[in-house]
Amino acid sequence: MNKSELIKEYEGFRSLGLKLDMSRGKPSAEQVSTVEKLLTAVTSNAQCFSETGSDCRNYGGLDGINEMKRLFGELLGVGPEQIIVGGNSSLNLMYDTVARSMLHPVEDGCKPWSKYDRISFLCPVPGYDRHFAICEYFDINMINIPINDQGPDMDMIESLVASDETIKGVWCVPKYANPTGISYSDNTVRRFARLRPKAKDFRVFWDNAYVLHDLTDTPDEVLEIFSEAKKYGNEDMFFEFMSTSKITYPGSGISCIASSERNIKRILEALKIQTIGHDKMNQLRHSKIFHCYEDVAKQMRVHMNIIRPKFQAVYDAFAAAFEGIEGVSWTKPNGGYFITLTLPNGTAKRTVELCREAGLVITPAGAMFPYGIDPDDSKLRIAPTYPLLDEVKIAAKLLACCANIAICEKQA
Amino acid sequence: MNKSELIKEYEGFRSLGLKLDMSRGKPSAEQVSTVEKLLTAVTSNAQCFSETGSDCRNYGGLDGINEMKRLFGELLGVGPEQIIVGGNSSLNLMYDTVARSMLHPVEDGCKPWSKYDRISFLCPVPGYDRHFAICEYFDINMINIPINDQGPDMDMIESLVASDETIKGVWCVPKYANPTGISYSDNTVRRFARLRPKAKDFRVFWDNAYVLHDLTDTPDEVLEIFSEAKKYGNEDMFFEFMSTSKITYPGSGISCIASSERNIKRILEALKIQTIGHDKMNQLRHSKIFHCYEDVAKQMRVHMNIIRPKFQAVYDAFAAAFEGIEGVSWTKPNGGYFITLTLPNGTAKRTVELCREAGLVITPAGAMFPYGIDPDDSKLRIAPTYPLLDEVKIAAKLLACCANIAICEKQA
Repeated sequence: MNKSELIKEYEGFRSLGLKLDMSRGKPSAEQVSTVEKLLTAVTSNAQCFSETGSDCRNYGGLDGINEMKRLFGELLGVGPEQIIVGGNSSLNLMYDTVARSMLHPVEDGCKPWSKYDRISFLCPVPGYDRHFAICEYFDINMINIPINDQGPDMDMIESLVASDETIKGVWCVPKYANPTGISYSDNTVRRFARLRPKAKDFRVFWDNAYVLHDLTDTPDEVLEIFSEAKKYGNEDMFFEFMSTSKITYPGSGISCIASSERNIKRILEALKIQTIGHDKMNQLRHSKIFHCYEDVAKQMRVHMNIIRPKFQAVYDAFAAAFEGIEGVSWTKPNGGYFITLTLPNGTAKRTVELCREAGLVITPAGAMFPYGIDPDDSKLRIAPTYPLLDEVKIAAKLLACCANIAICEKQA
Repeated sequence: MNKSELIKEYEGFRSLGLKLDMSRGKPSAEQVSTVEKLLTAVTSNAQCFSETGSDCRNYGGLDGINEMKRLFGELLGVGPEQIIVGGNSSLNLMYDTVARSMLHPVEDGCKPWSKYDRISFLCPVPGYDRHFAICEYFDINMINIPINDQGPDMDMIESLVASDETIKGVWCVPKYANPTGISYSDNTVRRFARLRPKAKDFRVFWDNAYVLHDLTDTPDEVLEIFSEAKKYGNEDMFFEFMSTSKITYPGSGISCIASSERNIKRILEALKIQTIGHDKMNQLRHSKIFHCYEDVAKQMRVHMNIIRPKFQAVYDAFAAAFEGIEGVSWTKPNGGYFITLTLPNGTAKRTVELCREAGLVITPAGAMFPYGIDPDDSKLRIAPTYPLLDEVKIAAKLLACCANIAICEKQA
């Protein structure tokens, strides 16, 4: 299509008065309705007890109920003694972990991070905007690390952490990364496992948000990080996070942090100052509907069947609209919640603007980069899960139309 | 009784092999069983929506659902726009509020508290050990403020905050204070409301944990703090906290923070970095069983009827055992969860020790004071709610016996 045809198509979309949102990795109403049994998992006083007989309604149990620790352990491939069950938000656990490190030493003999003039985190890009927001909030300098199809650039990470004592952390989404959808290769995981950082209090924030979130019948496999790290005596270097937000309820799921037993003990010491303990009734509900890995895997297949056609709708729309357009590509991940669309440099922001004017909200260009700056202005994150399938079809066509207009404008 | 009779009585208790716990302000199994309807408040997908139609299962709604903001507003006597609904732990909200203040300015033009060499909090004593633990964790110096039957010593507080810019906060439990049970007089509340601290970022942590927790039909009344503070333009100086932990479920209730609209806006800015939002499904459950103040008040009368006989059992045992013993007195609060027993100086620790050896756990002597130090070693906190009534009767007699032995030993 030439520009005038594109503009005509665009005006057609505008006249529809659309109100669509593909901005966040948010499950749809259909998805959250698939676990109705959670609502009736515990309905009487007699059912309010954990397997050890503790009353889940009352105080106590800072690390979570046994059955939930065991389940998370199984899902992540670690022992229950490596788990602390959290509240409804793994983001909150990550925030807390950084916040605690700012004011209390992460490691014996180290000083709190806030006592440095400046500390830095390594940020594989494009990445998750909420990770970067935590760094920005605490004034932690962010260093961009490019990602390839094996994971982050490990040469760069190894060299930086080995030489700079003020680099204190790295954000990782090892499986179906937000937003690229790539999974870390075995070699990448092993190189993380044997990192030799100069800072004794360097930590890897291993956000396994999509550990079970496959979109195909040939899912990616990522090595379990603690088994690898133990080979190098490095298990204290990792904090792993996951939640059931995209398994059961986004707003009312259960989160967890996994780490070495030594770190877990350390965190619990701090946690007992911080809270009376997390909501055990919701843990109990979850443990009643999920007894083991396979129960959760079954639920994930239900999600996959709802989500997969939406991803396909985007691929189809993009394939049709971008045929023969140079400099345009998109990911087709085996799992996760996002498609990354790469456009010619300097056209991403304009595309978002055109989308917004026609009633489609997508993630702001730049949001996947520290400080909101995409140096090439070329990446867009597409989150196709929340709208209805028919809406995704329209939204993807509209988005492609906007991108093509932006490309024409740029070339003009 | 003389000492040998007391020791004989004590040996009698020891031979029973008791295992009793009056150490924490913890509701009993009977109490937590009174809200079974919470378990069936939401049992189908169709019920998962708030009054504005938002899906409580999904992401969103950082400040909480309308109906819960309105309810907390009603319970505290403030507007819903002054409320942020939290998770299951008001302690966690208090911790977070202090933690945030350590690294981010509480007020425009101020620096974060961690940038001072030393800051202090005023701590009315005896007080709540978990408040003091937060200060200790953040290395905040604690200054003891005596409490009388009107509340904390306001002369001392006014004079300290007016002259010392490094005093940044004060812990208050304005109603049925933990552990004295006293409620702040109107004059005390008004003096708080018109405080003129030297530090612009001085804050009052108004922990209204027992706002509805009466034990008599002639309950204490405490003035609403924000209405008073507004008269002096001081509403930004207060953070108020409460929760349903001792209304519904201790471990799975709903907490809130109340403050000025300006502070609320400021907190929400930070909260959006920190979490995806709190559990709205549990908020929805609570709002379905409590529509208004009177619904909650009714539930509190159910608790009162369970708790009151346990307090009476302690009074009866103490009256019998301490008759004619000099230097012994105890509180008879109109509400709350605690009785404070005052013993002759230097006998509290020994009493706790004797109790423990006979199978009764009570709160460690000193726990109600900063750094765990009761300068007189004379105060004990009795928490009679958790054990069964018959157990409370035995425990109170045993405790009195132990105290009398400790007094004899001291006199010897």
